Amino acid sequence: MTTPKISRYPVPKLEELPDDIRARILEVQEKAGFIPNVFLTLAHRPDEFRAFFAYHDALMLKEGGLTKAEREMIVVATSGANDCVYCVVAHGAILRVYAKDPLVADQVATNYRKADITPRQKVMLEFALKVALHSAELVDADFDKLRAHGFSDEDIWDIGAITAFFALSNRMANLITMRPNDEFYLLGRMPKK
Amino acid sequence: MTTPKISRYPVPKLEELPDDIRARILEVQEKAGFIPNVFLTLAHRPDEFRAFFAYHDALMLKEGGLTKAEREMIVVATSGANDCVYCVVAHGAILRVYAKDPLVADQVATNYRKADITPRQKVMLEFALKVALHSAELVDADFDKLRAHGFSDEDIWDIGAITAFFALSNRMANLITMRPNDEFYLLGRMPKK
Amino acid sequence: MTTPKISRYPVPKLEELPDDIRARILEVQEKAGFIPNVFLTLAHRPDEFRAFFAYHDALMLKEGGLTKAEREMIVVATSGANDCVYCVVAHGAILRVYAKDPLVADQVATNYRKADITPRQKVMLEFALKVALHSAELVDADFDKLRAHGFSDEDIWDIGAITAFFALSNRMANLITMRPNDEFYLLGRMPKK
Amino acid sequence: MTTPKISRYPVPKLEELPDDIRARILEVQEKAGFIPNVFLTLAHRPDEFRAFFAYHDALMLKEGGLTKAEREMIVVATSGANDCVYCVVAHGAILRVYAKDPLVADQVATNYRKADITPRQKVMLEFALKVALHSAELVDADFDKLRAHGFSDEDIWDIGAITAFFALSNRMANLITMRPNDEFYLLGRMPKK
Amino acid sequence: MTTPKISRYPVPKLEELPDDIRARILEVQEKAGFIPNVFLTLAHRPDEFRAFFAYHDALMLKEGGLTKAEREMIVVATSGANDCVYCVVAHGAILRVYAKDPLVADQVATNYRKADITPRQKVMLEFALKVALHSAELVDADFDKLRAHGFSDEDIWDIGAITAFFALSNRMANLITMRPNDEFYLLGRMPKK
Amino acid sequence: MTTPKISRYPVPKLEELPDDIRARILEVQEKAGFIPNVFLTLAHRPDEFRAFFAYHDALMLKEGGLTKAEREMIVVATSGANDCVYCVVAHGAILRVYAKDPLVADQVATNYRKADITPRQKVMLEFALKVALHSAELVDADFDKLRAHGFSDEDIWDIGAITAFFALSNRMANLITMRPNDEFYLLGRMPKK
Repeated sequence: MTTPKISRYPVPKLEELPDDIRARILEVQEKAGFIPNVFLTLAHRPDEFRAFFAYHDALMLKEGGLTKAEREMIVVATSGANDCVYCVVAHGAILRVYAKDPLVADQVATNYRKADITPRQKVMLEFALKVALHSAELVDADFDKLRAHGFSDEDIWDIGAITAFFALSNRMANLITMRPNDEFYLLGRMPKK
Repeated sequence: MTTPKISRYPVPKLEELPDDIRARILEVQEKAGFIPNVFLTLAHRPDEFRAFFAYHDALMLKEGGLTKAEREMIVVATSGANDCVYCVVAHGAILRVYAKDPLVADQVATNYRKADITPRQKVMLEFALKVALHSAELVDADFDKLRAHGFSDEDIWDIGAITAFFALSNRMANLITMRPNDEFYLLGRMPKK
Repeated sequence: MTTPKISRYPVPKLEELPDDIRARILEVQEKAGFIPNVFLTLAHRPDEFRAFFAYHDALMLKEGGLTKAEREMIVVATSGANDCVYCVVAHGAILRVYAKDPLVADQVATNYRKADITPRQKVMLEFALKVALHSAELVDADFDKLRAHGFSDEDIWDIGAITAFFALSNRMANLITMRPNDEFYLLGRMPKK
Repeated sequence: MTTPKISRYPVPKLEELPDDIRARILEVQEKAGFIPNVFLTLAHRPDEFRAFFAYHDALMLKEGGLTKAEREMIVVATSGANDCVYCVVAHGAILRVYAKDPLVADQVATNYRKADITPRQKVMLEFALKVALHSAELVDADFDKLRAHGFSDEDIWDIGAITAFFALSNRMANLITMRPNDEFYLLGRMPKK
Repeated sequence: MTTPKISRYPVPKLEELPDDIRARILEVQEKAGFIPNVFLTLAHRPDEFRAFFAYHDALMLKEGGLTKAEREMIVVATSGANDCVYCVVAHGAILRVYAKDPLVADQVATNYRKADITPRQKVMLEFALKVALHSAELVDADFDKLRAHGFSDEDIWDIGAITAFFALSNRMANLITMRPNDEFYLLGRMPKK
Repeated sequence: MTTPKISRYPVPKLEELPDDIRARILEVQEKAGFIPNVFLTLAHRPDEFRAFFAYHDALMLKEGGLTKAEREMIVVATSGANDCVYCVVAHGAILRVYAKDPLVADQVATNYRKADITPRQKVMLEFALKVALHSAELVDADFDKLRAHGFSDEDIWDIGAITAFFALSNRMANLITMRPNDEFYLLGRMPKK
């Protein structure tokens, strides 16, 4: 059996990569136990790679009113709406880990309205999906609804910006047929005790 | 921690059910090790329950040109398009088991074009999604394309009828907020050896 | 002039059919004066035929809060949304007969908002069309709106389940190009006196 | 029982109308046996009335490569796509009369692909629906397909212009809730001999 | 460099045209300094030309509660939704001139929600876009919302009728690939002082 | 008259900004004669600002098979599809300047099929719009079509990645109601000589 391709495009070898990119990738591998394919496949274009992960980190690693699990919920819900296999599978795994909940990712990827999340989180995802699918229709009332559920204006920027970043990310993954690593499918699926 | 509800509607107790329905449910429990919630929640209406499972069995258990895994692919792909959490999760599990493939269900539920399936299966799912989403637009050319990939006219009826049955099933699950059993999420996820 | 085909698929002769199916068909013929093509065309698959009509009868012939005309309104409105010629024409006829109204079927098939029906019936059809077209988006507020117009939870199940069943039925009719009998077009069109 | 309103807007009495408009209306009444509501309701605005019917006549009464029945098919198919009760019912009647076919209007209004019309007419309606629903996407290949079925460039202008005129007409009827006369529903429904 | 075609169809020479049409065109040329291509291209069909401009004038030149700039806003917003290059460019120019505002046309053509217009005008355009895109869904509440912003019922007819007329106009322009005159692009773009 | 807000969010003063961001902004101001609002409004979040412009530069300033005008065509066409006022107006100006064509931007923003561009550029924009609107449906045939028009695989990555980046950018602009500078509206509109 052959190993399936992880991208339509050439995938660079680690040793061919610029030092900073290779260092970043080795750090992830150290932490995760494997190299998520998004790193290897996007490394085909080093400058875009650097900007992509700088953007990712600015949104996903920063302090703020949203928990890490909530950020991943936004990723999973909007990636589901964009039918992006890589992001649904990979960020579904990360969501399960952060939320310590083996069920929530498949629910949110399919239909957040039926997920085991709070009403506040449902309002957050309703907004995110509007940004993902109909951003031109955003009006003041959409912001008011989030504020009524306790989101600050900076939280709302976070929700919108994470959605916007994964609008990019989903399109790149769909463009190059980025393949999720097999490891992601099982990660975080062991039930809570 | 409370047990989440499995339906918006009252769920009958096993002992209150008509004998034939209780027998059917106990048989499933014997085989699967648990009672899938579709049985308990639809038992709220015994006559509809009987017709539902008679229809299901007529399509999913019969002989024919489609493998059991292929039938479940149709269910998972069209249920994904209908954003039905119950069917994506429960039939995703069944698909993993029949296909002996821990990855295929999440792929097919999100985007069959990127799934580890054959070109013939992709043509099958393209047709199924047209039946699910735009059945009025079906024309002779759609049938010709399937025949060119070796599907018989009876196979095409199977593809269309399974899709049609899950058009019903997805709407019922969404109507009553049918909750997938926790067991389904992990089923069949252990990697092939 | 040749008789147009009533299905893409072979249509069994009455004498070839299993006894129970032939009996059912003869009974309908006795009552209606002709055999609606849905019976002949679906008889190509006896087991599916039995389940189909058992389901149909469980929903359309049962007691409940919806009148027979209201059930047919749901069929006609959702079949119109699915562009299903067989169901619009055949159930349009049945709706005219039950409602004793020669105009209502064409109105409901085209745009229920402009039909000669009650505000309560318009709310019922708004819900049915959401089940038909966007069932994943159903939320509690949709149920509340129906309850505010006097529908019980069991009535709501009926509305949703009839819509779900005809989601199946419309797709089968579109799949096999089921042709409505000529008799249906004129049935029930004589004005009220 | 009260007479239902035929428009959201005031409907002028015949005797209040400018002479030319009253004359036109009386002429139609003479010919049809009743006054189609489009005449009475649009007479609320005499200048628009005159332009509307001048446009209508320029397209529907002129000589050309399309038969009168084919022009009405275009009206019925595109009005069905726009869910316009007045135009589907009134022009459905006219189509039945011109085509001497009691069945074709309901078929074309619901799904032209399943109608008893020629392949050439199906290609004509496919083009009309693209003009009705996605006119910005028209490309040379759409014109070539019509030419390959024997339509001249002037015929294609006719198809497009009739569709464009009824894009206007459907929106006006939906705006003012124009009600079709009861007479239209039954017109032309007696079977061919 | 060749002059680009202004229509897929033959464009008549001024001297070949019927007198009334030539007179109308010369009058426009006198006033505007050039002949807008809509006049030359539609003159291919004199009767349709006469009806088209009679309709246009009845709606756009009449007295009423909407300013001339507001009428052009409706044209520009709905033509943007229909992706009609001729109408966006030509009526964008007219809107800039009437509104004495070099910015508003590009804003309204792209997204009226972000345009420098009043809340009342946004409600007007929201209604116009519903007429343009989903006229069958118009309900009483849509009229009530306009009335609450001070629009009379006759104003609402104007909004709806202008939208309906440009539904026709956009489809004709898209059909024949009507090309906007180069002059329109720059017209009215000099900043307010 | 008050100056309109350029963002829903606070806009930092130049002197408050980190040195690198202020330097970048002053450099742009030097070159363009004014500060495009995208710089001021996104500077509210310095880390995201840095990643945004690093990504922008990696895609828009790099060498490659696409001309600068072609890259801006992609931006304008996809921003038009996303109804983003900032990007249509600002990048429309840049497109006019690069293409030395005062007409092309309004054409491409409204409907690229009717624009004064080459058939090869139309195929490029057809692909870009598929990435923008339906990226999950990308298949090998889409790549083959571009290759048949002479695009290399690296060109295709560029087309897709520029589209993906502006999917992000359009959503950010719509989220914060980013206002285009008045200067952009007139830029590059003087006719070619």
